[in-house]
Amino acid sequence: MSRGKLLYAQSGGVTAVINATAAAVITTARAAKWPVLAARDGILGALREDLIDTTRESRAHIAALRHTPGGAFGSCRYKLKSLEHGRADYERLIAVFKAHDIRAFLYNGGNDSADTALKISAIGRELGYPIHVIGVPKTVDNDLAVTDNCPGFGSVAKYTALSVAEASLDVESMCGTSTKVFILEVMGRHAGWIAASAGLAARAAGEPPHVILFPELAFDEAAFLARVRATVERVGYCTVVASEGIKDPAGRFLAEVGTHDAFGHVQLGGVAPVLAGLVQRQLDFKCHWALPDYLQRSARHVASKTDAEQAWAVGQAAVEYALAGRNAVMPVIVRTSDAPYRWKIEPAPLTRIANREKKLPRSFISRDGYGITAAARRYLEPLIRGEDPPPYAKDGLPKYVRLANAAVPRRLAEGWEPTG
Amino acid sequence: MSRGKLLYAQSGGVTAVINATAAAVITTARAAKWPVLAARDGILGALREDLIDTTRESRAHIAALRHTPGGAFGSCRYKLKSLEHGRADYERLIAVFKAHDIRAFLYNGGNDSADTALKISAIGRELGYPIHVIGVPKTVDNDLAVTDNCPGFGSVAKYTALSVAEASLDVESMCGTSTKVFILEVMGRHAGWIAASAGLAARAAGEPPHVILFPELAFDEAAFLARVRATVERVGYCTVVASEGIKDPAGRFLAEVGTHDAFGHVQLGGVAPVLAGLVQRQLDFKCHWALPDYLQRSARHVASKTDAEQAWAVGQAAVEYALAGRNAVMPVIVRTSDAPYRWKIEPAPLTRIANREKKLPRSFISRDGYGITAAARRYLEPLIRGEDPPPYAKDGLPKYVRLANAAVPRRLAEGWEPTG
Repeated sequence: MSRGKLLYAQSGGVTAVINATAAAVITTARAAKWPVLAARDGILGALREDLIDTTRESRAHIAALRHTPGGAFGSCRYKLKSLEHGRADYERLIAVFKAHDIRAFLYNGGNDSADTALKISAIGRELGYPIHVIGVPKTVDNDLAVTDNCPGFGSVAKYTALSVAEASLDVESMCGTSTKVFILEVMGRHAGWIAASAGLAARAAGEPPHVILFPELAFDEAAFLARVRATVERVGYCTVVASEGIKDPAGRFLAEVGTHDAFGHVQLGGVAPVLAGLVQRQLDFKCHWALPDYLQRSARHVASKTDAEQAWAVGQAAVEYALAGRNAVMPVIVRTSDAPYRWKIEPAPLTRIANREKKLPRSFISRDGYGITAAARRYLEPLIRGEDPPPYAKDGLPKYVRLANAAVPRRLAEGWEPTG
Repeated sequence: MSRGKLLYAQSGGVTAVINATAAAVITTARAAKWPVLAARDGILGALREDLIDTTRESRAHIAALRHTPGGAFGSCRYKLKSLEHGRADYERLIAVFKAHDIRAFLYNGGNDSADTALKISAIGRELGYPIHVIGVPKTVDNDLAVTDNCPGFGSVAKYTALSVAEASLDVESMCGTSTKVFILEVMGRHAGWIAASAGLAARAAGEPPHVILFPELAFDEAAFLARVRATVERVGYCTVVASEGIKDPAGRFLAEVGTHDAFGHVQLGGVAPVLAGLVQRQLDFKCHWALPDYLQRSARHVASKTDAEQAWAVGQAAVEYALAGRNAVMPVIVRTSDAPYRWKIEPAPLTRIANREKKLPRSFISRDGYGITAAARRYLEPLIRGEDPPPYAKDGLPKYVRLANAAVPRRLAEGWEPTG
C-alpha cells in the first residue's frame, strides 16, 4: 500500500506557535518525501474538499512559518456531531481522504479535536479505509489531559508574566498621584493556568502581581476589596490579574455577555472593567485596566523558546508516528525532571485525552487564594524559559509570512453543506 | 561658582524608555564628575525635599536602568500653579535647590513640564539664585512642539504596529467561523500619533489595519459601519484601531467616563467596547476587542532601537547643555534626512515648546479618513526601526532593575504641603 498523502489541519483558537508545529509537520514529511496537504480553515476545509497543496510552498516560506503567529492554513470552531447524529460528516471526510489518497490525518487542536480525531479513526476502520489519525496538542489554555503542558501555553504565559512586570513598573512609578490599582484580564475560560503564570512575575515576596483571581475559586467581593485596600496601604499600589472566567459564589461569570461559540462555550470578555468599577466605587482608588485579548495568544515576538521547541517537537513526532503506522495517538510532552528541566515526547492514546479537561490543581494556588505556590512556580517557570524572537525586517516589524496556500483541484462531484 | 549638583526629575506619564534618558543623564554627569540627585516622584519630591542620591547606585544598576521601563525615581501628575497664584511653590523649589547646592535642574516631561521648567528658570533669576533649567522631552503622545518626535513614542508605535500585525494574523485564521471584527484601542488623548503608527503594520494595500479612527476626525457612525461591513465582505475580517480620544460629531468623547486627572484632562478608556457593541448590534458580526492600556507604554521588551537611542541622546545632551551653561532650553530631535533616516540633537528654547501641542497633520491621514498616507509612513517608519531587547534572566523574564533610591538627608527645617 502506498503511503499516500498526509493531511494536516488546525483546529480551534490559534496560538503564537501553532505554525511552528505546522512547519515541523511539513519539514519532517518533506524529509521523508511524503506530500502534505493542509485543510483550509481546519476541519471545514476537509469537509468542503478545500485542500491546500503545501508542496508548492518554498522552503523559505516554510522556515518563516516557524516564527509566524496565527494559523497559516486557517482554523475554525466547528465541532462534528456524534457519530450517531452526524455520521454523514464522517463519511464525507473518508470520501475526501479516499479521493486524495490521504492516508494520515494530523489534527492540531485541543480536547474537542482529540475526540473528533478518535471518531474519524473509528469510522475509517469501519468503512474499510484505514486512516492513521494523530492528534497534535495545542492550546493556550493548557487544559489537555496527559501531556505535561500544551504547546501555545508557554508563550502566553511568558507574555502574561512579562506584561505584569512591565505594567507594574509603570504603575509603581506614579501611584502617589495617579493610578493605584491596575487590573490585567487574561484568558483561560475554565482553568486558571494563564492567570497562574502571571505569578511568575513576582520573583520575591511582595512583588507584583499582588492579587490573582482564579476561575477555580469563587469570587469573594469583600475579601477581594479588603486585600486590594491592604496592598495599596502597604505597597502604594496593587496589581491584580483576573481570569476572564471568574465566577461569583452563585457560579455566574462576572463578565457574562450571554453569547456562545460553536462549541457551546460562553464567550467572555470584560471582567476587568467590572472589577475596576468595583474598586473605584468601593475603595475610591484610581483604577486602570488592560484587556490584551488576542494580543496575548498571538504575541510571537515574545514567544517562549521552550514553547516554540515543544511546538516543533510535537509536529515532528506526529509525522514520525504516522510514518511508523501508529493510530489514534497524540504526541504528548513528558517532563522527566524539574531542575534541570528536561522533557521528552511520547505517544499517548487519544482515548485518554478526548473530552477531558485538566484543571489547575488547588495545590498550585496559595492558601489565601490570591497567589501561586512554590509547586506552581516549579511547574510553570521552565515553560516560559528562553527567548526565540522572530527575525525583524528593516522597517522594524517582524518578518511574518503569508503562505500562497494554493488549492488542490477538487476530485469529488458532490460538495458539502453542514447538516441541519 | 561651584557647579554644585544636578537635579533630575521625571514628570507625567512614564514610557518604555524614559529610564534610558535617566541612565544617560547619570552616566554623562558621572563622566563629568557631577553629582546627580533625583527627585522622588517627580516635582513633588523636589517640593517635599524628598531627594534621591544617585551617586550611591552601582554602575551595573545604572546600566540596567537603560533597558528598564517605568520611571525609576517615580513620576507624578502635579501641575504647579501660575507664578501669580502659586508663587510659594516656586520659592520652595528655589529654597530646596539652594539647600542642596543644586545648580541645574533637568525636567523630563511633556509640554506641561516645559512650562514649569520655564517658570522655575524665571523665578530663580528673580530670586538671585540662577539655576540652569533644561527641559528633556518625553511623551508617548508625540505631541511636543519643535522636536521632530518625542522619546517614548517610537516604542509605543512599534508595539502598536506589531500588535496589529500579530492579532490580525490570529483573526484572519479564524474569521470564517469566529471573530470577524477586531478592535484595538490605543492611547493618544488629543492627537492620533499612536493610532497612525498602527498603519505601519500594513506593508501592502489591503493589509490590516483596515480602519483607523483618529481623534482629529469626528466619528461618523454610519460611514464607519459601512466601511467595516465592506471590509468584512471583501477580506473576510476587519481590524479596527481606535484612538481613545475619538469624539462624536457633537465633540463628545465616545468613551467619556467623566473623571479628570490632575491636569484637568479627561480620563479615558473604553472606546473599544463601545465600538464592539455597535458592530455587534448593527452588523451582527462577532467582535473581539483589546485595550492594552499601560502595556503599550511600558513594553520595553519590544522597544524601538531608534527610540531608545534618542531617549539616551536627549539625556546626554541635556547634561552637556547644563554643563555649557545653557538655560531654559530643551534638546530636541532634528530630522536631517528621511532616507536614509538621519537625525541630530539641537537645543530649542522652552518658550517655543511650553504649553503647545503638535497635532497629527491632516496630510498624514488618507483622504477617506481611515488610513495613513505615504507622508505619514515616511515620517513614522524610521521611528520604530531597530530592536533593542533587554537582557533576559534564566527564568525567561527581562532583567529589569529596581534602584535602591537612597534618600538624601533633609536640610530644611520646614516641610511642604500643597497649597489650597
